[in-house]
Amino acid sequence: MTAPPTPALMLDGDALDRNIATMARRAQGVSLRPHAKSHKSAFIARRQIAAGAAGVCCAKLAEAEALADAGIADILITSPVIGADNAARAGALARRIALAVVIDHDMAAPDLAAHAPGLRVVIDVDVGLGRTGVAAPQQAVAVARAAAAAGLRVDGVQAYGGSWQHIAGAETRAAAMRAGMVRAQEAVAALRAEGFAVTRITGGGTGTATADLALGFLTELQPGSYVFMDRQYRDALGGDADGAFEQSLFVASRVISINAPDWVTIDAGIKAFSTDAGLPAIAEPRWAGSRYFFFGDEHGGVTRPEGAPVSLGERILLIPPHCDPTVNLYDRYRLLRGGAWAGEAPIEARGRGW
Amino acid sequence: MTAPPTPALMLDGDALDRNIATMARRAQGVSLRPHAKSHKSAFIARRQIAAGAAGVCCAKLAEAEALADAGIADILITSPVIGADNAARAGALARRIALAVVIDHDMAAPDLAAHAPGLRVVIDVDVGLGRTGVAAPQQAVAVARAAAAAGLRVDGVQAYGGSWQHIAGAETRAAAMRAGMVRAQEAVAALRAEGFAVTRITGGGTGTATADLALGFLTELQPGSYVFMDRQYRDALGGDADGAFEQSLFVASRVISINAPDWVTIDAGIKAFSTDAGLPAIAEPRWAGSRYFFFGDEHGGVTRPEGAPVSLGERILLIPPHCDPTVNLYDRYRLLRGGAWAGEAPIEARGRGW
Repeated sequence: MTAPPTPALMLDGDALDRNIATMARRAQGVSLRPHAKSHKSAFIARRQIAAGAAGVCCAKLAEAEALADAGIADILITSPVIGADNAARAGALARRIALAVVIDHDMAAPDLAAHAPGLRVVIDVDVGLGRTGVAAPQQAVAVARAAAAAGLRVDGVQAYGGSWQHIAGAETRAAAMRAGMVRAQEAVAALRAEGFAVTRITGGGTGTATADLALGFLTELQPGSYVFMDRQYRDALGGDADGAFEQSLFVASRVISINAPDWVTIDAGIKAFSTDAGLPAIAEPRWAGSRYFFFGDEHGGVTRPEGAPVSLGERILLIPPHCDPTVNLYDRYRLLRGGAWAGEAPIEARGRGW
Repeated sequence: MTAPPTPALMLDGDALDRNIATMARRAQGVSLRPHAKSHKSAFIARRQIAAGAAGVCCAKLAEAEALADAGIADILITSPVIGADNAARAGALARRIALAVVIDHDMAAPDLAAHAPGLRVVIDVDVGLGRTGVAAPQQAVAVARAAAAAGLRVDGVQAYGGSWQHIAGAETRAAAMRAGMVRAQEAVAALRAEGFAVTRITGGGTGTATADLALGFLTELQPGSYVFMDRQYRDALGGDADGAFEQSLFVASRVISINAPDWVTIDAGIKAFSTDAGLPAIAEPRWAGSRYFFFGDEHGGVTRPEGAPVSLGERILLIPPHCDPTVNLYDRYRLLRGGAWAGEAPIEARGRGW
């Protein structure tokens, strides 16, 4: 099989499978429900489920709809589902797969109950970021009561700290997680005091997974990026246990201009990488001393390596700065097996943010 | 027609058509070849051509292939086409549409000539950025000679200064353009002295169009973003003549969480906007004093407005920070006509960067 046209999103399938096996081994004793917002792909979701995952998480309804269409049958939607139109979509989805959605306000319950009667809901608890989630234990109880009264089935709580995941230093990261989890523990206690069973406590990510497992509070783990890793996680997690996943995701690019004395220009720029987390890293040994810089939407610059001159068409592999939004730019993974190109896998939920 | 699910890329078709008409009127006396890297859409390309454009530019082969499939029949590819595989694709494309490609190195000529004999090429001249283009007039001549000797047809030069487009202040911006264009003028003089006709001098963008037309050096104008505008261009161009285009592109979003005292959370984050050019602006009068902040990949925060409380599900329109890479995140424009939802248009070349 010949090399794909560039830029291409390259996935080392061997490293992917080892990462999936490593997390499945670590997560014994809890339910593993990897987050599909990272990979948006039934190909990877199926491999995670085959390795023992209970199902996957999705960030948005459209992501879940695409993966359900591709055969994934057990999904938790981790953002609140708001509005009658979206409640109707959740209802349609719940009629064909095992679905649960998070809820963080009592006013969201009537729409969901009207369009998806009996739907399983999970009370989203704000663990400190103020992004989504109930603000206090008494609001958790109010939302659970409203949901139950409307005819929804209250399964438990979600406690996810997105801002903890990239904290450098395993102990600092763990301490931030434990401090924030106090809010979720209080919400669980308040719900149980009101008679709610709280059989499911879902959360966690690639950065906090080791500490989440050690704390033993979560019953379900939601890591996403561990299947790929990226430059941002590599920088933050370094030699931590949480960082012990292999880089499996790359952008393959090519040199297309060599007229400048100090750098060359490649065919991968702002449209080939997300730019929210700094710069891509260069994965080629020959280019070890070089650095990448964004050169507009279509191009990147790479400082020239020591030694042999650079040829037009020379290929360079790069590590994306941030895996999730980079994956969201591509329609397919170009697979590598045993170091050789080995077909492709579709990214069915790419761009499906609604 | 009901409102689309959010986040959605909304295009005000009336403002779009007025922008297309304004640029077509201004560009009389030169050939107008708008850059399709901005819109990636045959729907918009067709409207530009109907208003007098000669064809469009594309940044990459895959973008051109998608628009050719959708019926666009005259395309200039503005990045060097490198490698036998890409030369073969250019050859296939040249057999079905009027195609020209830029070239900036003599070593690119043999592949192109072998796979696309007689292809029209344009010598790309570096006007100061060092991204692509020949470095000096004598290299322009060397590339033109190599191209002609290989059997390619040398049409002229490209002189595009991407870094000029967002300079604030019409005169400062024009001065940067004129200083850089000296390099292109020297290349044209050197090529003509060697007997090359140089019938086509292509370049320019939304930021420099007025100054490009005043200078009178370009024979073909390549503006892209004027069809949409964005927050970055609005900030830079302000009341300039170049800024006198209407905002036609928006991201429609919805409030999905209202538990924090100082802000609300909407369903549009890093996957809904490109993040290379700062923050989206808020287009709703009710939210005039509010500001948006990124709240991770899936969400945004918006500070609460003065006055009435915010409801779950309330819709907010935002202006993307940078139009081109934001368009590249969506599969379709949701059209507005006369202020009402009016169907959609596909973004055929979305994600086609290779």
